[in-house]
Amino acid sequence: MKHDRIFNFNAGPAVLPLPVLEEIQESFLNFKGSGMSITEISHRSKWFDDVINEAVERTKRLLNLDDRYHVLFMQGGASLQFALMPMNFLGDNQSADYVNTGTWSSKAIKEAEIQKKKIQVVASSEDRNFSYIPGNISFNRDAVYVHITSNNTIKGTQWAAFPETSGVPILVDMSSDFMCRPIDMKNVGLIYAGAQKNIGPAGVCLVIVRKDLLERVPKNLPTMLKYTTYSEKNSMYNTPPCFGVYTIQLVLKWLEETVGGLNKMKEINDRKAKLLYDFFDSGDFYKGTAEPGSRSLMNVTFRLPSEELEKKFIAEATANKLGGLKGHRSVGGCRASIYNATPAEAVPALIDFMKTFEKKNG
Amino acid sequence: MKHDRIFNFNAGPAVLPLPVLEEIQESFLNFKGSGMSITEISHRSKWFDDVINEAVERTKRLLNLDDRYHVLFMQGGASLQFALMPMNFLGDNQSADYVNTGTWSSKAIKEAEIQKKKIQVVASSEDRNFSYIPGNISFNRDAVYVHITSNNTIKGTQWAAFPETSGVPILVDMSSDFMCRPIDMKNVGLIYAGAQKNIGPAGVCLVIVRKDLLERVPKNLPTMLKYTTYSEKNSMYNTPPCFGVYTIQLVLKWLEETVGGLNKMKEINDRKAKLLYDFFDSGDFYKGTAEPGSRSLMNVTFRLPSEELEKKFIAEATANKLGGLKGHRSVGGCRASIYNATPAEAVPALIDFMKTFEKKNG
Repeated sequence: MKHDRIFNFNAGPAVLPLPVLEEIQESFLNFKGSGMSITEISHRSKWFDDVINEAVERTKRLLNLDDRYHVLFMQGGASLQFALMPMNFLGDNQSADYVNTGTWSSKAIKEAEIQKKKIQVVASSEDRNFSYIPGNISFNRDAVYVHITSNNTIKGTQWAAFPETSGVPILVDMSSDFMCRPIDMKNVGLIYAGAQKNIGPAGVCLVIVRKDLLERVPKNLPTMLKYTTYSEKNSMYNTPPCFGVYTIQLVLKWLEETVGGLNKMKEINDRKAKLLYDFFDSGDFYKGTAEPGSRSLMNVTFRLPSEELEKKFIAEATANKLGGLKGHRSVGGCRASIYNATPAEAVPALIDFMKTFEKKNG
Repeated sequence: MKHDRIFNFNAGPAVLPLPVLEEIQESFLNFKGSGMSITEISHRSKWFDDVINEAVERTKRLLNLDDRYHVLFMQGGASLQFALMPMNFLGDNQSADYVNTGTWSSKAIKEAEIQKKKIQVVASSEDRNFSYIPGNISFNRDAVYVHITSNNTIKGTQWAAFPETSGVPILVDMSSDFMCRPIDMKNVGLIYAGAQKNIGPAGVCLVIVRKDLLERVPKNLPTMLKYTTYSEKNSMYNTPPCFGVYTIQLVLKWLEETVGGLNKMKEINDRKAKLLYDFFDSGDFYKGTAEPGSRSLMNVTFRLPSEELEKKFIAEATANKLGGLKGHRSVGGCRASIYNATPAEAVPALIDFMKTFEKKNG
């Protein structure tokens, strides 16, 4: 493969579009004729203003956001957002609804509880080992917000669509499926996405927040923990993670101009995922772990007949330049993460290898 | 200049060592034969373990740290540290001492006050516009900690040495002079440094913390706001800012192996700064704003006879490939930031330009 690269199925940090990496590399010692690296220019310069503004504008265009939304670049990953949501939005004697679909949802719930905020877990898929997305949920009409994890990287499940909440704002962790397809923003109050899965390097968290929610932010929070600090200063109250924002800007440009937008991206992602799931369903050596109606387009989790075979499978795949197929350390098994930047040819290459491996070991 | 680069006097994000940038560029599409970019490899991989462990070890060696200290990589910049120090270390009915030497110290004080923590400003240089570092300070013997800003990027002042605190731990913001010279760790409890001035790109904050202070961390803080979350997991409770940590690792390698350690670095920095200050003192067209005993090795702030001349000076310097000489927007004037990575030849080039400019406009 070009530059002797592998097919990278890592769950995150994960594969980035090759043209984006090539552009970063090419301009790394001299950004836009500035005579400086992107890592060396001032965040108060015209050069960086153009970068961050373009990243914001492309996010708005790709998702069809209207003026009710701010696009922010924050630090601390999704894990910090777990704490900031209740801290910023949930007052005394108010309550929020949470849906528990696995590790990341559980962590979000835990961070609300640490702060002794009142929350209610209105649905959970723990009864079947988080292998599905709960349906027909009754949300509380007086909840300040509903929290869901859009895609569950570890368990390989994904909401087909956001739930109907009768107008209660939905706060969504989209770290692992942000920009994988168009979304319905109707009830969305906030989206957050750690960049390192689908849109950039680790160290930036893209946040989309609806302006009416910002009125809930208490004035006496530490400055860096208030969403308003970021919304009022275009994410530049202090020095932002410039290199990460720059990479995101290039990935979004690639999404708009090379891929052709989120409808096209969805077609490509549907096709890649279908190849793998159809292959599982056609035999019984590889078994998908997510229930069919809840399967993720991004993280395809599966098991082999034994842990010994799984170990062998991962080792031989790695030797064949198919990297990152090990399941999350908390659940074991195998996982092929097929994000936006996973090249179309990576999936057939993986399936070919899987067929050969099955023939030898099945 | 090589790659058509300029002399970059930005205050931060700032110049990085050219060999470091070249190495990043060269390996950007395939890190250490992994077939992936450093931005695409898992933080749970052997590759990244080696990166972060090397960054920790080099920090310890360069500063002669003993086993009482943890080295952490956090996010949110120095601005988040302002809030975390009182949150983690200052209990009810306890008090901390702060020294106010300018904007960044003031912000640290403000973040303690927002949390209604008890603090005392034991010294300030506000009386002479923060142009000096206060001496002979009486610290409170029962203070939990003393907070100082080691180098004041905006006002161009720097502590010549840390103050004597009779054993009270000193917490130091070293964002703009970290690793510029050896330091005496005798009373140091914590050091924090936003990377983007002397050791890397924006988006990582390197923190050194003495283990006994960690016993003060309350158990019920949000996970991402506790220093113990980072110290217990080698900074990898969640995905760290991998690219930033990698760049820091390379800068520290350059400091150890190319420069030859912090004593050598100090010699070089002393020489660069002396050239500029001696030049100011030899005439009266350019006037340094910091008082002689408090002058910074890193940020050399100065004024010209008029704001009009300053504007002209900055514009002509920029046209002559001497970039980033504008003073901070809050104070105006001029500033030459001469960090570790500023090449030795940059300072004579600047002085030559200054002489020519003075001849034409003096």
